Amino acid sequence: MAWTYSQPVKIIFGNNKIESLHEIFTELGLKNGLLVSDPIFVQNNVADKIIDHSKGLLVKVFSDIVPNPTVDNVDACAKLIKENNLEFVVALGGGSSLDCAKAAASVCVTEDSIVPYHNGEKKFPENHLPLIAMPTTAGTGSEVTPVAVLSNPYIGKKAPLASDNFYPLCAIVDPVLTTTTPNFVTASTGLDVLAHALEGFWSIHHQPICDAVAQHSTKLVFKYLLRSYKDPNDIEAKEKMCEASLMAGLAFGLPKTTGPHACSFPLTNLYHLPHGEACAFTLDYFARINAEAENGRLNNFAKEIGFEDAYAMADEIANLKKALNVKTTLSNAGIKDEDIENIAKLSMHPNMLNNPVTMDQESLIKMYESLR
Amino acid sequence: MAWTYSQPVKIIFGNNKIESLHEIFTELGLKNGLLVSDPIFVQNNVADKIIDHSKGLLVKVFSDIVPNPTVDNVDACAKLIKENNLEFVVALGGGSSLDCAKAAASVCVTEDSIVPYHNGEKKFPENHLPLIAMPTTAGTGSEVTPVAVLSNPYIGKKAPLASDNFYPLCAIVDPVLTTTTPNFVTASTGLDVLAHALEGFWSIHHQPICDAVAQHSTKLVFKYLLRSYKDPNDIEAKEKMCEASLMAGLAFGLPKTTGPHACSFPLTNLYHLPHGEACAFTLDYFARINAEAENGRLNNFAKEIGFEDAYAMADEIANLKKALNVKTTLSNAGIKDEDIENIAKLSMHPNMLNNPVTMDQESLIKMYESLR
Repeated sequence: MAWTYSQPVKIIFGNNKIESLHEIFTELGLKNGLLVSDPIFVQNNVADKIIDHSKGLLVKVFSDIVPNPTVDNVDACAKLIKENNLEFVVALGGGSSLDCAKAAASVCVTEDSIVPYHNGEKKFPENHLPLIAMPTTAGTGSEVTPVAVLSNPYIGKKAPLASDNFYPLCAIVDPVLTTTTPNFVTASTGLDVLAHALEGFWSIHHQPICDAVAQHSTKLVFKYLLRSYKDPNDIEAKEKMCEASLMAGLAFGLPKTTGPHACSFPLTNLYHLPHGEACAFTLDYFARINAEAENGRLNNFAKEIGFEDAYAMADEIANLKKALNVKTTLSNAGIKDEDIENIAKLSMHPNMLNNPVTMDQESLIKMYESLR
Repeated sequence: MAWTYSQPVKIIFGNNKIESLHEIFTELGLKNGLLVSDPIFVQNNVADKIIDHSKGLLVKVFSDIVPNPTVDNVDACAKLIKENNLEFVVALGGGSSLDCAKAAASVCVTEDSIVPYHNGEKKFPENHLPLIAMPTTAGTGSEVTPVAVLSNPYIGKKAPLASDNFYPLCAIVDPVLTTTTPNFVTASTGLDVLAHALEGFWSIHHQPICDAVAQHSTKLVFKYLLRSYKDPNDIEAKEKMCEASLMAGLAFGLPKTTGPHACSFPLTNLYHLPHGEACAFTLDYFARINAEAENGRLNNFAKEIGFEDAYAMADEIANLKKALNVKTTLSNAGIKDEDIENIAKLSMHPNMLNNPVTMDQESLIKMYESLR
């Protein structure tokens, strides 16, 4: 089996690491930076704390970002960078600020809007501003991946944009930042972690290093997600879920996601299920579908982490979803029988081709029917 | 728990990858390079094949390297690079050529000998030639680590030299290159892999990503080392041992090695045990000693990979050593009772401080006495 691996992001992990930002930035040779923050962290003064801990190395804040960041958000952020000759970018938040900052740190060295890059018409030059990622949820793993998801409302397009430029120079993961996450967000983002780990493992593009971290991550989610959901102050659980999230990011970054992520897009776009909840919606179904693929490697994976087989692991995913109070049936997600055909059609996203068992319109309809 | 992680080496893994060297070097923007090769690969024409597959991008060969490469080897290699204005370095071989090439690719940008760097008197400048590592044994993991071991015969010093400069730009791991490894070398280098994985895991500097790859690597060694030893043409076993070696390199690169490596140095220097065999000499003993440390994390590790506990895993290490026909007792290693005190003293290498259970002269004497 042939594979390639590359993981250029330096990782700094630990509780209260934000207190060392000045030292970290100094060691990396960074000064005159922009903090790109989800608006909530400006409101609750976490952004102020970050600025304080930078001791003068972060000089501006940009937080004009909507939950699914738009091309306009990116262009405005890049404009601010250019007007102020800023030299590095720190992204603080869940997915949105990271998505926006990744794109802005690259497009700001050009005279362009992000639009032609998002459309695939242009390729970024190699140079870009150094990016520091500071995740505030245990979920996307975006701090170690080269992908940003952007929306262009003018043409009704929401799509990922990938570039090696988008790898952060450094991910600073401070689990304390996740203690203010609302419980329902902990549930959804935590299930996204599980989807990343499992899909990275069973993707047809699986590879050994990603397999190893996927298994590590999966074990942690089963052990700590419910604790993290039930008690936001359980710092050990928060820490372990941050570890799981980061390692799941490493697990799927190269192999890419598969069936559950492909199915999540219509569930989120049409029925507004939060991303992780939408991925989890079909995750246990796919664990059963994929159990015997490639000589039963998912069965072996499940056995090695203490389950009888992949089917027993799927049962546990279903139990976990119930305990986390997320939607598990078409009816409680507000999806009608007559919608199934359309959802099945829209689930044939390119990521579906990474699934180890081939899915088609008919098998997807059968799946959704079983989820009534 | 706080930790940092960085792994800048791009990895390209697969059978017959050497046939794609021209494409790989071209994609990396490399030309006008030097092949640093262990002498054996010049003799058996593998070096010629590498040169051919580079299609003109490798223009010189340096193979004047002794098994424990000396500072003179490094200086001669650096001189050749400078005289010919070479622009990148490819290291082909077991540990020796990689050690020599790492040091030469860094010191060649200075006017110095490697000696003051080896002595700790000077620090390398940041710039250095790009290095490509092509391991020919499944053992050192040197293709992903920033360490070179060099000897200075003038002052009787053999010591590792570490520098971030020594990280290869790219590791090209072609398992076919390991099919010519003699069986006794497969045994020793394979046991070195196991020591790297286990020591990286139980080191007091353990950290999650390294833990995950350590476990993956350990599983592979128990499954494939004996097969690889018994049949050099078992390409699946060769491939899996290369995977294990690389991932063990990742496993110990940051946490560093511990007791067994510390003990290996006098066993190699005074009694000429090959490096991996010397590490394995005390590996099962340390697996028992370390079983309960840090809330029994080695016991959990052993259980997760299918053993009853760390003691059962230690038994299996002992069985594996016997099956590989390596030396397992003081008497068959030619070590006399009266030598024990001296060996125990020389085993107090700094790496011993990374062991999770504190060892002293008395406990080391007890250990060696039990290995009579």
